[in-house]
Amino acid sequence: MSLYDTIVIGAGPAGMTAAMYAARSELKVLLLERGAPGGQMNNTAEIENYPGYGKIMGPELAMKMYEPLAELGVEHAYGIVEKVTVNPVGIKKVTTEDGTFESHTVIIATGANHRHLGVPGEERYGARGVSYCAVCDGAFFRNQDILVVGGGDSAIEEALFLTRFGQSVTILHRRDQLRAQKIIQERAFANDKISFIWDSTVEEVLGDEMKITAVRIRNLKTGAITERTFGGMFVYVGLDPMTETVAELGITDEAGWVITDPSTQTTIPGIFAVGDVRQKNLRQITTAVGEGALAGQGVYQYITENV
Amino acid sequence: MSLYDTIVIGAGPAGMTAAMYAARSELKVLLLERGAPGGQMNNTAEIENYPGYGKIMGPELAMKMYEPLAELGVEHAYGIVEKVTVNPVGIKKVTTEDGTFESHTVIIATGANHRHLGVPGEERYGARGVSYCAVCDGAFFRNQDILVVGGGDSAIEEALFLTRFGQSVTILHRRDQLRAQKIIQERAFANDKISFIWDSTVEEVLGDEMKITAVRIRNLKTGAITERTFGGMFVYVGLDPMTETVAELGITDEAGWVITDPSTQTTIPGIFAVGDVRQKNLRQITTAVGEGALAGQGVYQYITENV
Repeated sequence: MSLYDTIVIGAGPAGMTAAMYAARSELKVLLLERGAPGGQMNNTAEIENYPGYGKIMGPELAMKMYEPLAELGVEHAYGIVEKVTVNPVGIKKVTTEDGTFESHTVIIATGANHRHLGVPGEERYGARGVSYCAVCDGAFFRNQDILVVGGGDSAIEEALFLTRFGQSVTILHRRDQLRAQKIIQERAFANDKISFIWDSTVEEVLGDEMKITAVRIRNLKTGAITERTFGGMFVYVGLDPMTETVAELGITDEAGWVITDPSTQTTIPGIFAVGDVRQKNLRQITTAVGEGALAGQGVYQYITENV
Repeated sequence: MSLYDTIVIGAGPAGMTAAMYAARSELKVLLLERGAPGGQMNNTAEIENYPGYGKIMGPELAMKMYEPLAELGVEHAYGIVEKVTVNPVGIKKVTTEDGTFESHTVIIATGANHRHLGVPGEERYGARGVSYCAVCDGAFFRNQDILVVGGGDSAIEEALFLTRFGQSVTILHRRDQLRAQKIIQERAFANDKISFIWDSTVEEVLGDEMKITAVRIRNLKTGAITERTFGGMFVYVGLDPMTETVAELGITDEAGWVITDPSTQTTIPGIFAVGDVRQKNLRQITTAVGEGALAGQGVYQYITENV
């Protein structure tokens, strides 16, 4: 079995940048990904906050980051990682459904997942009107009334995007003001297609078995329950780290985010974490590529000193 | 006098990203710069390690980062900053040669300068054959024999670039191996125009008053002094922080780099530092934009909480 210098788990902007930096240091790099390269960028319509591009579609930026990697010698394999272990001499073993890979170092760049509401009907209508990705599914809801749940950047950005398709977009938020950046808030307030339901949560998703038809809504201040007709519901209420596969390593906090030092190394020498999966305050493409560079460099230093 | 939410000092990738993030939070932003926007990117021929661009010329990436800022409302002023002070209620005052600006917060993004050798003849022939910027000056040395001093990434990258112009490029390094990334080293070793002088330093720069003619070289192992004919000398022996203007604030380390917490805030609330000027291990465009995003967000939080 060939021994890699580093295995990068996850091909979002953080993972791809880490792979690029490691490969530029002439390391033997395997990039494992269970989907298309790009991570959450693939679920983002227009990206306006990545320096160097005024505006760019998420999937396009993903491809632009991915394309140079092959020429640098980065191996890319499809793989669903089941487990990461470390043997007594420090070799890391990454077990996927299709086989096992060994490496001196591992860079965890598995990202985070959209949190579900956990209310009745949500999973049942999962592919029949409930979505967590406006870019993927928006076009299915032409001329419908769309509900967006959440009040942060993602919720409001995606609500704005959905006005391209829906005849109306209603934003439901549990508080009486949004958390999103003001520039995004103001665009939403200025958009005729967008209206708001404040201080409320979704109680239940209702449907006719084929698709969702309505949402039962609870007003948190009055306790009143109302039913509103919607053809689709998009949920943006936060992220959960994708760290089940490394849970046993003892490098995560209570919520599952991976704890690292400023160089992106975890408490296990030679295991790094970058991007959305890291315990931190700001999850952006900019911060992801910065951390990717640090990890790529960190891996090189680890190997220079330990191998 | 108008009071800014933040004044960003320096328009390299870190400063421009910080300005963008702050402006996207609807803050009133002034970007002060004493040269062209882009910082060290303007001194870099081809950039190969900024994700999203396989290869791009430094000045082109600089313009792509700069262009969207005006539309976001970022004010841009020419200014050589002389002093930054903080008054008792936390307002920051930035004094330039042309006037004084006040702000709730300041983001220091002044970058770093190429270190000089400090040998006789270096300053005298500063614009007559001694250079710190291959992109700026390389074309002046067509068909000449060029000396490059240094062994890190910048030295070797720029030596490779200079082979486009010079009839030969000699790399002089004080050690017996290079510090540069291996991928870059190997390109240099494979290039017929490039040769090496190991274990040596420059003793003196010689010239005919009009331009440099030769360099006196000391071999550190044997102590031998030799004289070699060169038409130009490019120096890449490290960086010094550009922090004279903030030296009195007590936020720098012994070498002058600005110390921050992981959110990029210094020990003075509302003063942040990003990019090459920060005390850190890796100075890259990727890390600069990541830090810029953090500072832009940090400024927004400071103002939300304190103003």
